[in-house]
Amino acid sequence: MSINNLERNYKKNTKHSNLLYQKSLKFFPGGISHNIRFFTPYPFCVKEATGKYLVDVDSNTYTDYWMGHWALILGHSPQNVSLALSKQVKNGTLYGTVNSLSIELAETIQRLMPKAEKLRFATTGSEATMYAVRLARAATRKKIVAKIIGGWHGFNSSLLESVNYPFEINEGLGLDVDNKYIKSIPFNDLDTSLQLLNNVKEELACIIVEPILGGAGCITPNNDYLQGLQEFSKKNNIIFILDEIVTGFRLSIHGAYKMFKLDPDLFTLGKIAGGGLPIGIVCGKNEILSLSNPNDKTNKNLICSIGGGTFSANPVTMTAGLKTLEFLQNNKKIVYSKINELGAYTRKELQKIFDENNADVKITGIGSLFNVHFLNNNVREINNATDVALADKEKLRKYHFALISKHKIFFLPSKMGAISYQHSKVDIDKLLNSTRSIIESKIL
Amino acid sequence: MSINNLERNYKKNTKHSNLLYQKSLKFFPGGISHNIRFFTPYPFCVKEATGKYLVDVDSNTYTDYWMGHWALILGHSPQNVSLALSKQVKNGTLYGTVNSLSIELAETIQRLMPKAEKLRFATTGSEATMYAVRLARAATRKKIVAKIIGGWHGFNSSLLESVNYPFEINEGLGLDVDNKYIKSIPFNDLDTSLQLLNNVKEELACIIVEPILGGAGCITPNNDYLQGLQEFSKKNNIIFILDEIVTGFRLSIHGAYKMFKLDPDLFTLGKIAGGGLPIGIVCGKNEILSLSNPNDKTNKNLICSIGGGTFSANPVTMTAGLKTLEFLQNNKKIVYSKINELGAYTRKELQKIFDENNADVKITGIGSLFNVHFLNNNVREINNATDVALADKEKLRKYHFALISKHKIFFLPSKMGAISYQHSKVDIDKLLNSTRSIIESKIL
Repeated sequence: MSINNLERNYKKNTKHSNLLYQKSLKFFPGGISHNIRFFTPYPFCVKEATGKYLVDVDSNTYTDYWMGHWALILGHSPQNVSLALSKQVKNGTLYGTVNSLSIELAETIQRLMPKAEKLRFATTGSEATMYAVRLARAATRKKIVAKIIGGWHGFNSSLLESVNYPFEINEGLGLDVDNKYIKSIPFNDLDTSLQLLNNVKEELACIIVEPILGGAGCITPNNDYLQGLQEFSKKNNIIFILDEIVTGFRLSIHGAYKMFKLDPDLFTLGKIAGGGLPIGIVCGKNEILSLSNPNDKTNKNLICSIGGGTFSANPVTMTAGLKTLEFLQNNKKIVYSKINELGAYTRKELQKIFDENNADVKITGIGSLFNVHFLNNNVREINNATDVALADKEKLRKYHFALISKHKIFFLPSKMGAISYQHSKVDIDKLLNSTRSIIESKIL
Repeated sequence: MSINNLERNYKKNTKHSNLLYQKSLKFFPGGISHNIRFFTPYPFCVKEATGKYLVDVDSNTYTDYWMGHWALILGHSPQNVSLALSKQVKNGTLYGTVNSLSIELAETIQRLMPKAEKLRFATTGSEATMYAVRLARAATRKKIVAKIIGGWHGFNSSLLESVNYPFEINEGLGLDVDNKYIKSIPFNDLDTSLQLLNNVKEELACIIVEPILGGAGCITPNNDYLQGLQEFSKKNNIIFILDEIVTGFRLSIHGAYKMFKLDPDLFTLGKIAGGGLPIGIVCGKNEILSLSNPNDKTNKNLICSIGGGTFSANPVTMTAGLKTLEFLQNNKKIVYSKINELGAYTRKELQKIFDENNADVKITGIGSLFNVHFLNNNVREINNATDVALADKEKLRKYHFALISKHKIFFLPSKMGAISYQHSKVDIDKLLNSTRSIIESKIL
């Protein structure tokens, strides 16, 4: 079967999606509300989602490994969350005031992640990382921000640089204001990173890094990479920011920082912390977060002014976050051992299947996260975003599209997959068998 | 009765709130998740909200004119919205994909506001205005952004300048990167504004303006002010951005731009458009929005990369927005005539009460929005944010605190009030009588 046949098949099965996508193009540039949500020939259009399933408008049911940008660790609309939400929505969705739920959620997070000495609730991850960087600049009175090549911290102007290959070219029009204050360093190459950092250390406010490169392809850190960056930060009074928007409550209920024995000055949370509703959180050391206290100072220019926003600490997000963390806490062992074991099984068996079929593939990942990389003559290992960009991304897109169109298994093409508590070994075995069938059909 | 007595009374009635606020201080700098949500001695802590009421943890019930940062035009949890939400939360809160609800909401908005030739859904107003400015810079290849002194467009780094008095001092630490590209102009002073704009017109990307200064004190535009800015923009190929996050669907179901006969190149929506759930939208001319189409170009640096974000177009927000706009459309005359008539009545009668009691006050507002300003020797009129800042803000805070503590009427102290469809003449008469009683008690 060829990729053309798959497209024909997809189009046959998603006629209503096609019509709606054509309509979507009339309203949205590219027909989407997030750049990565488009894939060829057109993305199917979802009408509902429960458990591990996405259902499109043609009533195709997909086993979902995209899971709401990896946010839905308990699956779509888990019962304990949706029951609480269906009550909350009758009791107010937007108080616009201090409320008891936000205090409860903060207390829960702090108990699980004591390095969250203080917190600030915002509404999105893009906001949280923007505010983290602002706090770091405020604390150090310095301007330069170091980030990882391929590191993804949202669409805010402070960090939208070196995200997509070719990394040295800027990320598009309208952005050329802030970027000279961004220094990009290569993941997993500590020597080069420290050398680059050393060149700017007098002007360096912070280093921001995801513990696992998520959007860039699910890349785990080498032995001492994160520790090396942290050590450099501590030595030079630079703020060390860990972006745990993907990893927080995913790799461990106590954060990736605990797992990797790190001591970030600031860290950001999002996704799982909001239980499927919009959230972004800046957490960290009291002395840094306290710069944002609007009540401390009489001079506005001695405060670091951060959001907040209309929707910050709204009771719907707070409820979903609380119920999700409550479930994770009460079922810690069973949830994390299940999803991590399924993750390990997936990575191991996928690698085996590709190896057995002489497909030149490297599976990356950790815990419940995984991604497939098709190697080639230039790329023999996956250590950083450049490796991922120069690997055979076209083959990866074909593989994911074959999973979608023929096997009704959804990965956002090229992006890593996340296993939720709703997935079972049966689902993984279906993924494995489908993979085998795709390789054997010579589509790739 | 003195303000001290009122505080004593407030503390007596909000003991549980006090305890929770002390607890909140342990987690959040200043105990809040939005700078403006604090007021002295401490803000009460909300446990639920329905209709026109906020209920605090001590079971005090307040008639709410803050209404979720003025977002809740139908009140807290109106039945048609909450019923639809309680179904939706069982059917997925975060698809992370193209979905039919987002197409429906876009279609509804475009029908009501045809100048939304294209739209991009983001998750907050701060994101929407940041992306609007980015698009303007992309379209013009220029950098400078003009905003209004006192204009409020959220906490993003692109527009956080000249927000709080003294306006010429920057808005705090960590922000000193972008600000040299912001030019601030005085609201309602067209001559001075045009002169300042003229000085930078070669480098000017856009002018962004709220039709009504909202956060700065509910100030309406003079006759030709907005038209004058627009004319200057069109003449000089500058992007004219109208920030309708507060006014869209509030002043008119067709936007303030229709009301004021304006033709913005871009405009932003939020608040009401999300029906009480997180939203921000960039709307406007096809040719500008299309710069953000990720599928058009092969070169990433020819695209204007904007969010989106994990939560953009999420089905919960889409449902709440749709149900809210549907209700507004189906009940257009009854809703807008009710809230606008109540608004006019409030402004007229409040002014009368203050005048009769020789209180030197100016009521501002339009439609369902209003605010009170206590004048003094220096400030005889309210035309811009400087007038508001130099008026007697302390008296305004006392007035609002007296309404809260003695009369259980909630305005976020010093901020404008918004009338929702849930409010009635009985509520307004209570506000009027309470105001009379406050003046007579000589608290102010």
